Amino acid sequence: MKSMLRKSNLILFSLLVVFVMGMIPSAPPVPEEGMYPLSEIKNVDLKKAGLKISTKEIYNPQGISLIDALVSLGGCTGSFVSPDGLIITNHHCAFSAISAASTTEKNYLRDGFSAKTRADEIPGRGQCSIMESYEDVSNKVLKAVENVTDPVERIKAIAKVTKEISEAASNREKSIEARVSEMFIGKTYVLFKYRVIKDIRLVYAPPRAIGEFGGETDNWVWPRHTGDFSFFRAYVAPDGSAASYSKDNVPYKPKKYLKVNPKGVEEGDFLFILGYPGRTFRHYPAQYIEYQYKYQLPYISDLYEYQINTMLNISKGDDALELKYASRIKGLANTMKNYKGKIEGLRKIQLVEQKKQDDVLMKEFIKGNAQLNKKYGMLFADLDKEYTQLMNIAQATQYFGAGARSSAILKDVNTLFELAEETGKPENERKSAYTADNIESVKSKMIENVKNYDMKVEIPVLKKMLKDALKFETGSKINALYDALGRGAGEKEVDNFVEYLKSVFGNQDKLKEIIAKPSAELLNDPIVKFAKSIANQNSVITEENNKINGNLNKLLSMYVDAKAAYKNKGFVPDANSTLRFTYGHVKGYSPADATYYKPLTTLDGVIEKSYSGGDFIIPAKLKELYEKKDFGQFYSKKAKGLPVAILYDMDTTGGNSGSPILNAYGEIIGVNFDRSYSATINDYAWNESYSRSIGVDIRYVLWVTQKFNDGGYLLKEMGVK
Amino acid sequence: MKSMLRKSNLILFSLLVVFVMGMIPSAPPVPEEGMYPLSEIKNVDLKKAGLKISTKEIYNPQGISLIDALVSLGGCTGSFVSPDGLIITNHHCAFSAISAASTTEKNYLRDGFSAKTRADEIPGRGQCSIMESYEDVSNKVLKAVENVTDPVERIKAIAKVTKEISEAASNREKSIEARVSEMFIGKTYVLFKYRVIKDIRLVYAPPRAIGEFGGETDNWVWPRHTGDFSFFRAYVAPDGSAASYSKDNVPYKPKKYLKVNPKGVEEGDFLFILGYPGRTFRHYPAQYIEYQYKYQLPYISDLYEYQINTMLNISKGDDALELKYASRIKGLANTMKNYKGKIEGLRKIQLVEQKKQDDVLMKEFIKGNAQLNKKYGMLFADLDKEYTQLMNIAQATQYFGAGARSSAILKDVNTLFELAEETGKPENERKSAYTADNIESVKSKMIENVKNYDMKVEIPVLKKMLKDALKFETGSKINALYDALGRGAGEKEVDNFVEYLKSVFGNQDKLKEIIAKPSAELLNDPIVKFAKSIANQNSVITEENNKINGNLNKLLSMYVDAKAAYKNKGFVPDANSTLRFTYGHVKGYSPADATYYKPLTTLDGVIEKSYSGGDFIIPAKLKELYEKKDFGQFYSKKAKGLPVAILYDMDTTGGNSGSPILNAYGEIIGVNFDRSYSATINDYAWNESYSRSIGVDIRYVLWVTQKFNDGGYLLKEMGVK
Repeated sequence: MKSMLRKSNLILFSLLVVFVMGMIPSAPPVPEEGMYPLSEIKNVDLKKAGLKISTKEIYNPQGISLIDALVSLGGCTGSFVSPDGLIITNHHCAFSAISAASTTEKNYLRDGFSAKTRADEIPGRGQCSIMESYEDVSNKVLKAVENVTDPVERIKAIAKVTKEISEAASNREKSIEARVSEMFIGKTYVLFKYRVIKDIRLVYAPPRAIGEFGGETDNWVWPRHTGDFSFFRAYVAPDGSAASYSKDNVPYKPKKYLKVNPKGVEEGDFLFILGYPGRTFRHYPAQYIEYQYKYQLPYISDLYEYQINTMLNISKGDDALELKYASRIKGLANTMKNYKGKIEGLRKIQLVEQKKQDDVLMKEFIKGNAQLNKKYGMLFADLDKEYTQLMNIAQATQYFGAGARSSAILKDVNTLFELAEETGKPENERKSAYTADNIESVKSKMIENVKNYDMKVEIPVLKKMLKDALKFETGSKINALYDALGRGAGEKEVDNFVEYLKSVFGNQDKLKEIIAKPSAELLNDPIVKFAKSIANQNSVITEENNKINGNLNKLLSMYVDAKAAYKNKGFVPDANSTLRFTYGHVKGYSPADATYYKPLTTLDGVIEKSYSGGDFIIPAKLKELYEKKDFGQFYSKKAKGLPVAILYDMDTTGGNSGSPILNAYGEIIGVNFDRSYSATINDYAWNESYSRSIGVDIRYVLWVTQKFNDGGYLLKEMGVK
Repeated sequence: MKSMLRKSNLILFSLLVVFVMGMIPSAPPVPEEGMYPLSEIKNVDLKKAGLKISTKEIYNPQGISLIDALVSLGGCTGSFVSPDGLIITNHHCAFSAISAASTTEKNYLRDGFSAKTRADEIPGRGQCSIMESYEDVSNKVLKAVENVTDPVERIKAIAKVTKEISEAASNREKSIEARVSEMFIGKTYVLFKYRVIKDIRLVYAPPRAIGEFGGETDNWVWPRHTGDFSFFRAYVAPDGSAASYSKDNVPYKPKKYLKVNPKGVEEGDFLFILGYPGRTFRHYPAQYIEYQYKYQLPYISDLYEYQINTMLNISKGDDALELKYASRIKGLANTMKNYKGKIEGLRKIQLVEQKKQDDVLMKEFIKGNAQLNKKYGMLFADLDKEYTQLMNIAQATQYFGAGARSSAILKDVNTLFELAEETGKPENERKSAYTADNIESVKSKMIENVKNYDMKVEIPVLKKMLKDALKFETGSKINALYDALGRGAGEKEVDNFVEYLKSVFGNQDKLKEIIAKPSAELLNDPIVKFAKSIANQNSVITEENNKINGNLNKLLSMYVDAKAAYKNKGFVPDANSTLRFTYGHVKGYSPADATYYKPLTTLDGVIEKSYSGGDFIIPAKLKELYEKKDFGQFYSKKAKGLPVAILYDMDTTGGNSGSPILNAYGEIIGVNFDRSYSATINDYAWNESYSRSIGVDIRYVLWVTQKFNDGGYLLKEMGVK
């Protein structure tokens, strides 16, 4: 689930479908997949697909439409479902707000929360934004950089001009924040304006055992049984402007709110989703996927898995340790499972091979057309060159990235080096952290850090990382390691070296002694020498990556153009945290041999899973209600139970969490919260057979809200009788 | 899978369907489930179900029929598939034969085996038997015990008379072995005659990675991908009589062999199975199931799981230890998974409740009929009384049974006690093991045993067992424990006591010292005192169980009669390792919410699973063949692949392993080898929704045989072109 984007507050756009210059597509662009920018909705035959309202009702730049009910919410999506600014989103999107509001006495995380009156609603620190308008600023951006030839400088210049445009268009007083988003890498830029609301209050959350039912075990899993929803309310100053929390604030009156349809959906029904999907990588050449498949995904998932297993082994049977590691494990496991899903998916559909074949055909097509050949004749060789270099340093890149971040000792090793180097400089040339005023704080922080080291995890993880590094290929050799351990160093030398690091960082007195040394002496310390060598290579690798990415920025923009020429059709840009539309149907799937999963789960499955305990423990009340069969209007005769979750073939990714799922009439019938395991490769390629997203059924949302913590008043507010 | 019955060589029968005296059923007995005795086949409307041949072709006491192609094979089933005595059965039924024939150089278990010529076929120590005839001997048996009123004596008397009948009917010279089987407990007895064949040779086995693909992970699992088959050949003396291995022996010419149909089956096809199912418990009252559900299944599965986890934890990362524990873990895990499946299934369908309700209705029905009431009026109270007693001592029964067997130390503790007690007696009154001639051997064996103790497993398991015992309910209190540890003993005392046992049995010198003591002194040793107290209570519990079971033998025979009266229809006896017929269809199922499994798996699934490694590693050649798509005539267009395993709703249990799966024309299209997890409760109740058995598809059998170890000659022998 999740991978909630950290960035929030995003922005709007226009002519985004790529057409190759001069070539008229033989048919209107009707891709079978896609996260459509709003400008493209009108080009899709949605009526044929099942939509019963006009596309103007979904998006109308001249008037009010469904998109006015959408909010971007701290890396998630939400939607207004009442005239009084009530927002529905996921439980996992409200998690930190619920958690922050909870105490031992009032454990809202465990028990759920329901504001009995408006005054009881709990303010938090988040904000949300509503897209107001967008404008294509590609010409402005590209003009500003047309004379910049150095690829690294070009990227910096783009960042500068887009920042300037964003700032000029923002109007804080009128609660407008603007941001330029890169739609197609290196070529298309859109300025989005957002209305910002700064007072968001928690209204309702189900007990965690419902909102997070299945926990890590069921993460990325279908059949799913999670009631992953919560309600917020948006507040503004009495004059309608964005204001931070004040008791004088009033509920925001959205231009539009979604009608809730308590009847839900059935298999085969048409659906669409509006939301803020984070990041996809579909318009990249085979080599990009190969890089992910061969380097990034396995390195990180393997490293995280090792960390998780280390923590699990240490804490087995020790409740306190288990609790201590729980959230760290959870974070690592979410990424690990996603990456493993991607690796499995890439292997299964052999996407790298597929893309390679496609690229070969594209290359031949271009060769056969003089005009295109003139323009793109060198493109593939150039791409090859850059990606070959990128892969050459890939292992080192991963090591200096995710690897280094996984080791607290390595971070302190680096601090030790900076300390040695900076204190050797005259006061006025030092980095600010190391000036006379601050230096003692750096030192005491380091001493303090060391006290909290979890050596039982630190040491094996560091050993593993360094041993892995011994096996890196030529271009990625970690030289510092050999400088420190000797040319022919092996696993034994790594063990000894790490034990030595432990003897230093596991002993405050020894560390104090080292820190007290003057710069020149400290620079001779073997750890500092190692750190210096590491830091040097890191900056070389970073520079190389920047250069390659600078070159790729241009090449990839050409690649997209060349692809459009070759495919002779338009396609929509990769997701980039801007508002998108996607549509599809309630649909089961067959992810493994002889296996078929139906697209609707019921409360029976919740009860069944509850017997396995662990992540599946449920509130006693849920069992009681189940046994009473007290489902009222939310019972589905067709599903023979109370529907809980829905599966559909829409195109979503992280950031779509909390997106409303809308039926053919534009009524909300569920809330999107996850993808199936096989759909983790959606980020690289959408496919009808494996791409499935998961939402909580509105019937479960309403039933739980009504039955737990007396949330019936919300049904009334949403007009559900 | 498996739970291969240890008993082999079983036997034939007649009027087995129960009718209550004087009541004519309103319709012919057509139960929807069942493991039909051969006598009942004619009463089932098989034509309507889909059978295309006459029932006489399946079973014909006056002539040759399909049952003449069936063999009972060391707790499994097999069938003749060529005129030269070629037998097909499961790989797991041939496992010990393949294993025994394997060496480090010729690792047939790993690589598979194929006899290039008849002379290469490998003789083993097993035998098989073919049912020749059967006869109802109930009257003879019951007459012999009509005056025996003591229930324990009655059971002994039944055992005695059935043994006499069996022996009188056997004719070793003519290779005939006879055995009386109890069909309905305490009331119906049938004498089966079997032709025995004593020279069985291994002809063909696939590599273990195919024959056991999926290992413990996939055991009891659907979708399944195991090529669980092997071939034997039966040999007899030149005169046709049973003879142990001799190179002069000739292939046995079966009266009948099965025609192999290489076209396989499709979803929905009619199927039937002939085989030797081991044991079911369907004609037992609610209390019997309750006993299983509350006591036996949880006690044993929990104890085994603890042992498995202990071994897994100890051996993690230690290859030698992992190997050492592998087969022990495998055995325990097979039972554990079966029992857990049963517990889950019983809970899911609430069978105890269902049965209780049914028993209540039955009781009321009997009350309403004067004649029945006279006969069965007290039955339910009597059953209640016996089962109440049985449950009262249930925990102790489990402890003295599976519990005591799980601890090598407890066994030696008992030997120490016997040593003390027996050596205190005059020589001529001692048990034979303890006479002067043998006593040194007992002692040295014990010293030897101790050397091999795996204290890392022994100690925690023994502690767990004793701590569990502290929580036993009143009727099951293990008194010896309190005698040894003191009245208010708790977990701490258990730990101390076990550590004391460890200090004795973990120290050969100390043990030698104790053993050397004279009887009187030894009898005062605290361990021996504990052992004596344990032995005493064990014999009390055993006696009570015998008494209760003696009473139940009569009561359960009445229960079956009463049930027949109440249901007003006949039903077939529980499985008892005699030849049975069952039929059904190729059919998928839905074992969990939103989940549907199709009834045919393909090689694609094998390849897919192979990526998870472990139990799923496959021979490189299999992958190559898959990639070449070299499937010939065995490819199924409908399944879009090479079929591997089939799922069907037939009624099977342990002992049906290796049974031929036959199509509507009586041709073999697969070999049965397992049930699905949810079908483990088949043993208590069959149900269309969850009872599914699993077989290997004949297309996979033939394809593997042809492609691995050049077994193509066998296809020729079986008439497959």
